[in-house]
Amino acid sequence: MALVVQKYGGTSVANIERIRHVAGRAVNSYNAGNSLVVVLSAMSGETNKLVGLAHDASEFPIGREYDVIISTGEQVTVGLLALALKEMGYKAKSLLGHQVPIVTDSQFGSARIEGIDGARIMAEIEKGTIVVVAGFQGVDTDGNITTLGRGGSDTTAVALAAALKADLCEIYTDVEGVYTTDPNICQDARKLNRVSYDEMLEMASLGAKVLQTRSVEFAKKYNIPVMVRSSFNDAPGTLVCKEDREMEKVAVSGVTYNKDEAKISVLRVPDRPGIAARLFRPLTEAGINVDMIVQNISHDAHTDLTFTVTKTDFKRAFKIIKETAGEIGAMDVIGDTNIAKVSIVGAGMRSHAGIASKMFEVLSKEGINIQMISTSEIKISCVVDIKYTELAVRVLHDAFGLGREEILEER
Amino acid sequence: MALVVQKYGGTSVANIERIRHVAGRAVNSYNAGNSLVVVLSAMSGETNKLVGLAHDASEFPIGREYDVIISTGEQVTVGLLALALKEMGYKAKSLLGHQVPIVTDSQFGSARIEGIDGARIMAEIEKGTIVVVAGFQGVDTDGNITTLGRGGSDTTAVALAAALKADLCEIYTDVEGVYTTDPNICQDARKLNRVSYDEMLEMASLGAKVLQTRSVEFAKKYNIPVMVRSSFNDAPGTLVCKEDREMEKVAVSGVTYNKDEAKISVLRVPDRPGIAARLFRPLTEAGINVDMIVQNISHDAHTDLTFTVTKTDFKRAFKIIKETAGEIGAMDVIGDTNIAKVSIVGAGMRSHAGIASKMFEVLSKEGINIQMISTSEIKISCVVDIKYTELAVRVLHDAFGLGREEILEER
Repeated sequence: MALVVQKYGGTSVANIERIRHVAGRAVNSYNAGNSLVVVLSAMSGETNKLVGLAHDASEFPIGREYDVIISTGEQVTVGLLALALKEMGYKAKSLLGHQVPIVTDSQFGSARIEGIDGARIMAEIEKGTIVVVAGFQGVDTDGNITTLGRGGSDTTAVALAAALKADLCEIYTDVEGVYTTDPNICQDARKLNRVSYDEMLEMASLGAKVLQTRSVEFAKKYNIPVMVRSSFNDAPGTLVCKEDREMEKVAVSGVTYNKDEAKISVLRVPDRPGIAARLFRPLTEAGINVDMIVQNISHDAHTDLTFTVTKTDFKRAFKIIKETAGEIGAMDVIGDTNIAKVSIVGAGMRSHAGIASKMFEVLSKEGINIQMISTSEIKISCVVDIKYTELAVRVLHDAFGLGREEILEER
Repeated sequence: MALVVQKYGGTSVANIERIRHVAGRAVNSYNAGNSLVVVLSAMSGETNKLVGLAHDASEFPIGREYDVIISTGEQVTVGLLALALKEMGYKAKSLLGHQVPIVTDSQFGSARIEGIDGARIMAEIEKGTIVVVAGFQGVDTDGNITTLGRGGSDTTAVALAAALKADLCEIYTDVEGVYTTDPNICQDARKLNRVSYDEMLEMASLGAKVLQTRSVEFAKKYNIPVMVRSSFNDAPGTLVCKEDREMEKVAVSGVTYNKDEAKISVLRVPDRPGIAARLFRPLTEAGINVDMIVQNISHDAHTDLTFTVTKTDFKRAFKIIKETAGEIGAMDVIGDTNIAKVSIVGAGMRSHAGIASKMFEVLSKEGINIQMISTSEIKISCVVDIKYTELAVRVLHDAFGLGREEILEER
């Protein structure tokens, strides 16, 4: 008998009919002999509605009260699923974040889980109860309701799986798994049977919206196998797990893109020690995350420094950098929001040479200019003009043979 | 400096604009030097929506999960009001039932308050915070969320006022106060400046929908003055308070009606000791409340027994009574859903004679047949054909001089 944590996203619980369908899936797993904890998101659209209300009430609503409001969506769905399960004749009980409890820090709107006490859930499971836990929410040590930020229900599920030492965490969503790239762009994109935590982390943070990054970090840290699959059919899904030899055989597992970044270049920065720190400190203080940073060798004791931020932060970041640039004697600051980041990801890159140069050649052959490059052990990202995004994704997907049957069968 | 508990109903918090208006009212009271606790209902229509979802998920949803679902409406409004108050520059904090805590029994869907720990609220008030408490909800001793039943936010407000030893409890609603009768039926219905707890109790349970009965019981028990007034204007409202000499001067304070009852008559019941208990026990066991009961003197050791139940319970009650009547040898059972109960209420009845006979005369003069009569110290109720409801209310209102200026000025 296995202990399984299942998580269903907003589209999977969008209405009562879908919730009944989720109840049916849960019951199938329960009847197969599993102990079951089900984590739910809010009905799709509900959290957005609540966020809208909060923004109507206050210009800057993020804080304690914001979380009180937006945590209600999950409270409704867990109650409804518990009702639906009981209606089918099964023991079921909903638990909210503060009832589990799932203890977090007090960073309202984007709290981090600090600890989960699994005792109450295990006690219910031993009674044969299907436990339904509200995703996305927790409670701080003062008893205030907190939320984990967008996509936080994935994190709830994986963290619960870790705390309960579950055998498997299943993430049910509206896609069938993790694909080699966005099927809307490449018709021959293929679902991966398995992907490593590190690959998934690169894919998640690079724009593949299947799993929230933090949930993958949790899964990696506690070595929780995570199965991503569709709640709309019985297709097998993608298993996110530890890297193994089979995975290393494939150089590139996927092509991802992100259109949500903007580029800021600071021109002719005096090249002195500490100048980069001086430039980025005000951004950090304003809570702005910088993604890629490129600094080239200097000429005449001056250098150009380019970095990317999210499009949402662009205006604010530009204003801050403009001020700082003046203070440190840089010549000018220019911004560009018409960019996209295209990346290739693969655990096998560690052992395969020439992957980067192949990527650059493929893009160049299509006349796509590369504006910035950034690399990690298992990914290479290029910033290009936004109009080339789809083209770049397609030619890379093709060049690395991701759509071809034989490659997929290896995985 | 006074401690004031304000409660706003669903129409008063129906949207962000209305919530901002409530914030403005609260701030006015706060700026006048009051310490303030604000209790809110859910946005009008929201609880019905949630109840609908629960009924979609389960045929009999009432229970633990039902309360998890339907308590979310208040959670949203308290968060929004706290945000709106902060936006105006005031300290504000929302507290849910389990955060106060408001401890109740475990009767989900209609829980009763067992105790309120006012320490946390008082600590916030001492910091100058406007405390916003979710109405309608509590927590049982096992940490389960409970709800108090329809109109429960009134009870939350009065119970909080009692626990905090507040100087005043203000109930803001969409009417200007308590009227001598339904203004939709009598154009010259007048708002009462003051009404006693007992009168209000009779009016509330007889169909005037201004204040929930249990909240008035609480107010009476702890002697909390309750001001019922409109959140839509600055009219003075009606004060519900202890009976005094002035009140006794007026024989009849109001005329109420209730079209939500149905009548069941058991014919020729063998008149033996214990027969009434035998008849009503199965109804009690089925959770059906009986309102009026009339039994006349018997003939030939047989008697007729008539009682009323709510229209909702009628079918179920009729079926149960039909069975029981067969078992105890009654001749027949007949039901009638075309009835209404019309009542006159007044603290002064205790000291005024001839009120009942005047009521019967007034009705008889209009040709309205009285089917059942029931009396208490301060009210007389008559069951009549439902088609005469409005006529009966109007002639009684007129006959007891309730619309006349001079009577109103006495109060």
